[in-house]
Amino acid sequence: MEVIDIQQKFDQFNDHWHPRIIGELNGQHVKIAKIEGDFIWHSHEHEDELFMVIKGQLTMEFRDKTVEVFPGQILIVPKGIEHRPRAQKETQIMMFEPFSTINTGNVAHEKTKENLEKL
Amino acid sequence: MEVIDIQQKFDQFNDHWHPRIIGELNGQHVKIAKIEGDFIWHSHEHEDELFMVIKGQLTMEFRDKTVEVFPGQILIVPKGIEHRPRAQKETQIMMFEPFSTINTGNVAHEKTKENLEKL
Repeated sequence: MEVIDIQQKFDQFNDHWHPRIIGELNGQHVKIAKIEGDFIWHSHEHEDELFMVIKGQLTMEFRDKTVEVFPGQILIVPKGIEHRPRAQKETQIMMFEPFSTINTGNVAHEKTKENLEKL
Repeated sequence: MEVIDIQQKFDQFNDHWHPRIIGELNGQHVKIAKIEGDFIWHSHEHEDELFMVIKGQLTMEFRDKTVEVFPGQILIVPKGIEHRPRAQKETQIMMFEPFSTINTGNVAHEKTKENLEKL
């Protein structure tokens, strides 16, 4: 039952598209990542995914629309929905998702990150 | 897949200790509440609970210590742990917890809120 300071956790790494785990509860992880540039199109067969922007601006592309997410805003992507996150400048995001969630979902890719570090 | 603006949701109500649901995913609710003053001692038998402070200051009492949580910080209270939230001035909190979670946990009380509104 220690307080988790989100910014203090972001200060511990600099690479992009590489989520770290900062908390867990009820089979779900709280993760953070720094992102910049384009990610890949993917979906998660079994997991809904929550994105909250801490700093910067997250652009989420769907097949039929594009959504912009700013600090203080949340976007929930339901399972099965194809999406592609992007950020024009470095952006800090927080995610809530089940333990089983892989960052690239149904796609095996050089950007796939497994066995994430806990900060 | 609409963006959820947390502050815009807080603008829709003024009462204290009365959570609203602003999102759901993987059997979990995202809730927000305005709090001020003392809540009651309680615990949740089956649910871990995440608190994030959006504005103000959350004081969380445990039987053996007291923790202060500020904006940009998170506190996870594991199931079974007795806790009492307090706030000296009006504070905005966001919570992440399973659908089954009742605000007063194992205690039936006049502060118990069920059938929460979705904003």
